Amino acid sequence: MAAAVVLGGPAGWWRWHRRVRAARAAMVCSRAMASKTPVGFIGLGNMGNPMAKNLVKHGYPVIAYDVFPEACKEFQDLGAQVTDSPADVAERADRIITMLPSSPNAIEVYTGANGILKKVKKGSLLIDSSTIDPAVSKELAKAVEKMGAVFMDAPVSGGVGAARAGNLTFMVGGVEQEFDAAKELLTCMGSNVVYCGEVGTGQAAKICNNMLLAISMIGTAEAMNLGIRLGLDPKLLAKILNMSSGRCWSSDTYNPVPGVMEGVPSANNYQGGFGTTLMAKDLGLAQISATNTKTPVPLGSQAHQIYRMMCAKGYALKDFSAVFQFLREEENL
Amino acid sequence: MAAAVVLGGPAGWWRWHRRVRAARAAMVCSRAMASKTPVGFIGLGNMGNPMAKNLVKHGYPVIAYDVFPEACKEFQDLGAQVTDSPADVAERADRIITMLPSSPNAIEVYTGANGILKKVKKGSLLIDSSTIDPAVSKELAKAVEKMGAVFMDAPVSGGVGAARAGNLTFMVGGVEQEFDAAKELLTCMGSNVVYCGEVGTGQAAKICNNMLLAISMIGTAEAMNLGIRLGLDPKLLAKILNMSSGRCWSSDTYNPVPGVMEGVPSANNYQGGFGTTLMAKDLGLAQISATNTKTPVPLGSQAHQIYRMMCAKGYALKDFSAVFQFLREEENL
Amino acid sequence: MAAAVVLGGPAGWWRWHRRVRAARAAMVCSRAMASKTPVGFIGLGNMGNPMAKNLVKHGYPVIAYDVFPEACKEFQDLGAQVTDSPADVAERADRIITMLPSSPNAIEVYTGANGILKKVKKGSLLIDSSTIDPAVSKELAKAVEKMGAVFMDAPVSGGVGAARAGNLTFMVGGVEQEFDAAKELLTCMGSNVVYCGEVGTGQAAKICNNMLLAISMIGTAEAMNLGIRLGLDPKLLAKILNMSSGRCWSSDTYNPVPGVMEGVPSANNYQGGFGTTLMAKDLGLAQISATNTKTPVPLGSQAHQIYRMMCAKGYALKDFSAVFQFLREEENL
Amino acid sequence: MAAAVVLGGPAGWWRWHRRVRAARAAMVCSRAMASKTPVGFIGLGNMGNPMAKNLVKHGYPVIAYDVFPEACKEFQDLGAQVTDSPADVAERADRIITMLPSSPNAIEVYTGANGILKKVKKGSLLIDSSTIDPAVSKELAKAVEKMGAVFMDAPVSGGVGAARAGNLTFMVGGVEQEFDAAKELLTCMGSNVVYCGEVGTGQAAKICNNMLLAISMIGTAEAMNLGIRLGLDPKLLAKILNMSSGRCWSSDTYNPVPGVMEGVPSANNYQGGFGTTLMAKDLGLAQISATNTKTPVPLGSQAHQIYRMMCAKGYALKDFSAVFQFLREEENL
Repeated sequence: MAAAVVLGGPAGWWRWHRRVRAARAAMVCSRAMASKTPVGFIGLGNMGNPMAKNLVKHGYPVIAYDVFPEACKEFQDLGAQVTDSPADVAERADRIITMLPSSPNAIEVYTGANGILKKVKKGSLLIDSSTIDPAVSKELAKAVEKMGAVFMDAPVSGGVGAARAGNLTFMVGGVEQEFDAAKELLTCMGSNVVYCGEVGTGQAAKICNNMLLAISMIGTAEAMNLGIRLGLDPKLLAKILNMSSGRCWSSDTYNPVPGVMEGVPSANNYQGGFGTTLMAKDLGLAQISATNTKTPVPLGSQAHQIYRMMCAKGYALKDFSAVFQFLREEENL
Repeated sequence: MAAAVVLGGPAGWWRWHRRVRAARAAMVCSRAMASKTPVGFIGLGNMGNPMAKNLVKHGYPVIAYDVFPEACKEFQDLGAQVTDSPADVAERADRIITMLPSSPNAIEVYTGANGILKKVKKGSLLIDSSTIDPAVSKELAKAVEKMGAVFMDAPVSGGVGAARAGNLTFMVGGVEQEFDAAKELLTCMGSNVVYCGEVGTGQAAKICNNMLLAISMIGTAEAMNLGIRLGLDPKLLAKILNMSSGRCWSSDTYNPVPGVMEGVPSANNYQGGFGTTLMAKDLGLAQISATNTKTPVPLGSQAHQIYRMMCAKGYALKDFSAVFQFLREEENL
Repeated sequence: MAAAVVLGGPAGWWRWHRRVRAARAAMVCSRAMASKTPVGFIGLGNMGNPMAKNLVKHGYPVIAYDVFPEACKEFQDLGAQVTDSPADVAERADRIITMLPSSPNAIEVYTGANGILKKVKKGSLLIDSSTIDPAVSKELAKAVEKMGAVFMDAPVSGGVGAARAGNLTFMVGGVEQEFDAAKELLTCMGSNVVYCGEVGTGQAAKICNNMLLAISMIGTAEAMNLGIRLGLDPKLLAKILNMSSGRCWSSDTYNPVPGVMEGVPSANNYQGGFGTTLMAKDLGLAQISATNTKTPVPLGSQAHQIYRMMCAKGYALKDFSAVFQFLREEENL
Repeated sequence: MAAAVVLGGPAGWWRWHRRVRAARAAMVCSRAMASKTPVGFIGLGNMGNPMAKNLVKHGYPVIAYDVFPEACKEFQDLGAQVTDSPADVAERADRIITMLPSSPNAIEVYTGANGILKKVKKGSLLIDSSTIDPAVSKELAKAVEKMGAVFMDAPVSGGVGAARAGNLTFMVGGVEQEFDAAKELLTCMGSNVVYCGEVGTGQAAKICNNMLLAISMIGTAEAMNLGIRLGLDPKLLAKILNMSSGRCWSSDTYNPVPGVMEGVPSANNYQGGFGTTLMAKDLGLAQISATNTKTPVPLGSQAHQIYRMMCAKGYALKDFSAVFQFLREEENL
């Protein structure tokens, strides 16, 4: 499907493109065979750190870079080569994974003065696991393609725990022929690697999921709170919802009401889990994508506003299920 | 739990109440033994008609009333007694089920000039399966209790099809000791009878579930629509959501996007199912309950507004999953 | 207009009604001439207290009642008669003003066991200045009419300061012929008495105004906050808005941003003014009216939710313009 | 204030910058004196066409460019020079006004392969009257400044009629010392030229105003509709709002209810005025700015969604006050 979309176009272009593609496939193939050649990793923060360590564990020589030199030190001790810039990484590795906090960081790392594109080798495979605007992913892909290299977006779901355990989910967008090559690396860090379609669809899948997640979490918090105030026992209400049409992951797996479930953030004062500030960020990306595509998202935009307000009311670092607590607070005159 | 709430109060009152309750339990017991004694049924509309027929099938002599005499004719042919008013029903049956379209109708049928309470017998069991404001259920329960009878709210989930098949779900609120007596009748019409707590909690459970359902349905429609516009294949996106944290009943069992699932209203031009106008009604009840209890329901109130707007834009009789179509329409200049 | 609505109906009814009305007009006329006959006042709280005092100042003997006896003491010292119940007030005065906090209080004072209707005299004029659900006003009007008396709803705008100064605005709903009789009393307490139409339209006008006020206040707060974050000077932005199409009472007369205007609550830490909890109450009434009339109010319902959340976040007693502060709070990680 | 912001920075930089600035001020001065030297105009659409004509009327030789050659023809007949690209305009004029539909167009015209910056002369004054994301204005300003020229953002309020009559309002952002030079040209096209602060604040002022306008227009439509359904006469309700705290430009100058005012779009089937699709665009810009600055705009984002939905429901080309009609439609089963 994605191939059909990508390969659509005038016939002449298509023939030319097929030849390029065949050549590139050969390169990819040689990349795949030459496994255990070095892999670059840029962005060694909370998520990037355990992800890169899993590559090391799987025997890949890692070429590391982070804007904060301290973040690299640990990897030097693990035997990784540490470099001075993304360009240096690109010089030494033809497979690179980037894990960055936001769109501007990604733009800088790829297209900046010392960015990857300054020294990227033809045929290189660049995988961006950052969660960013899919329109930015597409722009980066164009710039990368101009250099004769391949770009794929592969944002993750699952938090720091899943990154450590190596069972993240990767949602991957890009040319389908390259998917196997990407998968080889990504399976070192995740248990689930899903091909989503052309470049940008990995991001799209992630932000759509997280927008629906935010909406159903707030909805669960509202429904549980209303039910409790109307006299229902929270555990009983959760049970009823979970066997009815209101059932959702937020009600049956990650219930936001303390006392209903064990082993979830609501059972631990909303510590751990997926922070409110990260959810607000993803909802901002959804909002921008919706605005750019003229897609109405009335509840998605309201969910964005609610998490934005929560960030300013002391909930920034709490798990996003703390919206129950935010809505529950009583009025005391 | 419900009992604890109901029986809380000064000790003297409690002792008196226990005696009354014991006496009433005896009555209920005799009611239960005297099964196959007549059962009244008031409100023979789209839902009431098949429900009452299931009582007949189970061998209960039915005493019927509907404000539209034609609605009763069919029951006369089935051997039911047809009466001229709710009061007449109350004179001839000590177990009565009511199934009415709205709060004002329920108030009229119970407390009106020819209402049930004019001739209700002491110890009668009155079960209201209408979906109405839980505050109204509580008022009715008080009025019924003053006459020495018992009131339970038992709204249903499941539509006309489930009513015909006898597999509705009943959410029941009222004194726990009476639950078994109610269940005896309700199991003739439903496969799932859940005790929710004191009077009004049946309604509360239903409106909380339906509010969460509306929110997650709109959220699913928004996420699917945004994903499609960002280049994702609908079936693939649904699959990704359903294995991720965005999963909900609306995405995995009743997907609103045509072509994703079979056997759901979205596969049949949004015919059948649960009408938008009924969802708007339930969200209005949720809104009123939230306003009265000062409970913030930001997404619930927005969902209410969206279904209200849909009703005015030609979607009133379509299934509520048609919100996907409502949000999907393209802008053509 | 209101007359046309009220008097519409079958011709026979209309002739009968005209006779009754003529007789009643005579009564009202005698009431008007007999000015300085006693006036009842029920509800001597923050607003009722200064309102009743203004009646005393204008030479009206006041018959007072409040559910808290202490509230009446001050009036005893001023020479008012204090009574034991609303019914007692109705026995001694044929013009009564009620000023109560909510719909249930109004229902109790009019129709309760010791309510006005127990002893109301035929031809009495009952003016309710409470802000309540217009549907409740209509119900009370029906009950009052059955007793041969006249009911008008006359909610006020303007706070405690305006009540003291005697320059409240009254929005009056009821039979037009009675408006002059009501105006005679209301002008003692307000500088602006507006006839709005049939019973309930006084309430309707007030809640529509306050809903629009809440929406434009939140809108002003959002626009000012966004502009400031985008680098605009607040005073300059206010000036630009006020000479442009964004101009509104909240931007040009009651600006919510500290430092933009003097003599408004935002210049005084949001003290005084119109409390957030009162705005939340009025928005709740708007919500209930909108739900009952199936009117979509997407921003009105969202405004309701925002003031509801503010009440729970420590803003209950601050002026409603504090929504600027609520939205402005910075995110600190 | 703006100067302080722009000139803030290390002292050395500041001294250097002052010299440059003095030199540039001399250039600007010479530009101002040499009035009636050619002025470039890029973008001759619905708005640009009458704006450029007003420059011609004031005696300015115009160097014209539009991506659609037909748009230029009329100007050729008026004696203007027509060029082949923005770069050509920059070669022949050192004062250029751009009026473009969106951010990507503006980026292309300034920084594209044949963009202004390819041939811009040092000291040129580039004024962008497009309504675009203020963050893009800032980026363009940086790129222009690198070439030794000056960029100001100067979006307009007022539609095609005001453009023809030459009484637009310009909201201008940029270095304060250049404001007089810009004003000289802008006063040929507008009656009101307001300096707002540093680059981007012209855009900021416009989108803040339009966001508040959209919110108060929808609020007015909701309040009028609710009042009408509660029995109020529309003209009377408008009068009450306009003398109360709900008063706003949308209620007192541009009332959306047919029959309330004359000479406004609501009196003419919502033809003319400010199109819904343009309002949706401006709200999209507000949304993006709010997302980027983490500013909560709960009603602004909802207003965006409502205008987005209206665009898809046949209202795209109607005046934005048609939201009254959108919300008013009755439910017919």
